[in-house]
Amino acid sequence: MTSSDEYLLIKAAFKQPVERTPVWVMRQAGRYLAEYREVRDKAGSFLSLCYNPELAAEVSVQPLDIIGVDAVIMFSDILTPLVGMGVELDFMPGPVLANPIKNQRDIDHLHPLIPEKSTSYVGEILRLIRQQISGRAPVIGFAGAPFTLACYMIEGGNSKLFSKTIKFFFNEQKLAHQLMEKLTTMTIEYLNYQIENGAQMVQLFDTWAGILSPDDYKSFVFPYVSRIFESLNGTGVVPKVYYINGSNHLLEIMSGTGADVIGLDWKCDIQTVKQQIGHKVALQGNLDPNVLFCNPEIIKEKVLEILTKFGSESGHIFNLGHGIDKNVNPEHLKEMVKAVKENSKRDC
Amino acid sequence: MTSSDEYLLIKAAFKQPVERTPVWVMRQAGRYLAEYREVRDKAGSFLSLCYNPELAAEVSVQPLDIIGVDAVIMFSDILTPLVGMGVELDFMPGPVLANPIKNQRDIDHLHPLIPEKSTSYVGEILRLIRQQISGRAPVIGFAGAPFTLACYMIEGGNSKLFSKTIKFFFNEQKLAHQLMEKLTTMTIEYLNYQIENGAQMVQLFDTWAGILSPDDYKSFVFPYVSRIFESLNGTGVVPKVYYINGSNHLLEIMSGTGADVIGLDWKCDIQTVKQQIGHKVALQGNLDPNVLFCNPEIIKEKVLEILTKFGSESGHIFNLGHGIDKNVNPEHLKEMVKAVKENSKRDC
Repeated sequence: MTSSDEYLLIKAAFKQPVERTPVWVMRQAGRYLAEYREVRDKAGSFLSLCYNPELAAEVSVQPLDIIGVDAVIMFSDILTPLVGMGVELDFMPGPVLANPIKNQRDIDHLHPLIPEKSTSYVGEILRLIRQQISGRAPVIGFAGAPFTLACYMIEGGNSKLFSKTIKFFFNEQKLAHQLMEKLTTMTIEYLNYQIENGAQMVQLFDTWAGILSPDDYKSFVFPYVSRIFESLNGTGVVPKVYYINGSNHLLEIMSGTGADVIGLDWKCDIQTVKQQIGHKVALQGNLDPNVLFCNPEIIKEKVLEILTKFGSESGHIFNLGHGIDKNVNPEHLKEMVKAVKENSKRDC
Repeated sequence: MTSSDEYLLIKAAFKQPVERTPVWVMRQAGRYLAEYREVRDKAGSFLSLCYNPELAAEVSVQPLDIIGVDAVIMFSDILTPLVGMGVELDFMPGPVLANPIKNQRDIDHLHPLIPEKSTSYVGEILRLIRQQISGRAPVIGFAGAPFTLACYMIEGGNSKLFSKTIKFFFNEQKLAHQLMEKLTTMTIEYLNYQIENGAQMVQLFDTWAGILSPDDYKSFVFPYVSRIFESLNGTGVVPKVYYINGSNHLLEIMSGTGADVIGLDWKCDIQTVKQQIGHKVALQGNLDPNVLFCNPEIIKEKVLEILTKFGSESGHIFNLGHGIDKNVNPEHLKEMVKAVKENSKRDC
């Protein structure tokens, strides 16, 4: 079995020399793969797949063999640990959370997560993945960040405008901080449980935090995310990645959270961002997910642009700037991975 | 009748001294007003209202009296001029464009806009507004910017991911530039027609251009927007405003388009942006539209934050960072306008 510090992914995350840029893709275990859709049909539903360790481990491993990525991310959803706090969750097909958070009582009803009790399936998924791939690649765990989870809990599901969330955070600041506290504690427990059970890198998804101005981000998000990163086990061994979509106005602040790696969307210029925060953190990203709908020559050209912009130093993990779309042709993703592997070789 | 250069709005747009910060709101003639909904019901549909000069002028003027804003923006939609190029447009209720652009033939079918023929209702709306308000406030005209119009034309309506648009622009670059050429010519004709008919400031809405990286924006958008601004009549008299949502990564480039004013979303920090581009352009914005769902004290607090961040120099037009939501209580908008007026007084 490969020792964790020998993986390209782990070395790049800690900005240690690597022979080429590692590559994986957000939502790589997903619907664009026929093999995934087959297993999901077997599971019956998205949630049944999340709760079934054998099948979840199977879809997690698929992109390693089919696509040739450099890491396996466990298959799960950021919302499932909320069930362990007393939230009623369903997917039809978008997430629906019964009893959205409105007041003190709703927050008081949330109880602490006991991961080994409520999310034991996640521990099992991680152990199964580690067994099945026997060291061929590192395994990534993940969690939703408190603000993004709060958005779902207040809106009751997806939202376009997040009006209820902003109204709650601004009108009910004390309650908002109470909710963030509870979610922060939960996230620390949950990610440490994943690390104990085999996660070799962890990513915190704060997808929606980009709707906040820098000042509001500093008040409502930064202290909690920082606390999560300082409370995780495995400092210096298990890299911590922090991702926000639409984060260009927040990058400077994000780079001070204690994350080892900042995950970029596709809109920002990775060269500019590297100049701005690259001395503090490694960068992950940042191909436009829509490029995978283009011709192979365009895919290669756009991959090269990003590799060139980042340059030959270590500290870059190639990825999309957002999750892969379900309608992408897997052959196109293979082209992307091949282009990264062939065009990022260097002496180290 | 007030001369155009005496309006707070016009003076602030050209960074001339003003006694207080002017304020208006994107989509201020809209569904949040019961008075608007009444007129729209009379018109029968959204499109009928766009095409009915008397009723469109009536809803345009409503917020001047009801809310007390400092400008009247003509009621219209960015997509209606496309009908004059041969596009079939409907709203049910979101925009639906028949025969989305896919190939050379689709682009060849688009014919030049003759504004006095196809959009004479817009000329009439502007003249009616000018008559009705007899100089009490300046009148704002507007158009959709070519890239944003292209998004609608390629997707066939609204989109979340803009996959077709990106695929078209990257795979079919020659066609994409042809489409941008045609839309640029149209937009110049259309905005100059509005200026001839009484528009005293014009805003170019490039709502979706924020999905592009700086490099792609430079290739596909910047040259066209710059050409529009340099081709408009009334330089130095009719201020030109340029707005993109999610533009933090593009602000530096946007400030070189020739726009007099850059319209900001609510996510960027207006103090930071002022340091970055405030020496070149005036700034418009940038209250979070969701703040209008909060308590009056919060609204006032957030208005003050923005006024303080911008500081006491001229060159600021207060606005939301995006259009006002239909569920906002008009009393809350009045609170916002009042807070701007009362807290931005200065000697000039």
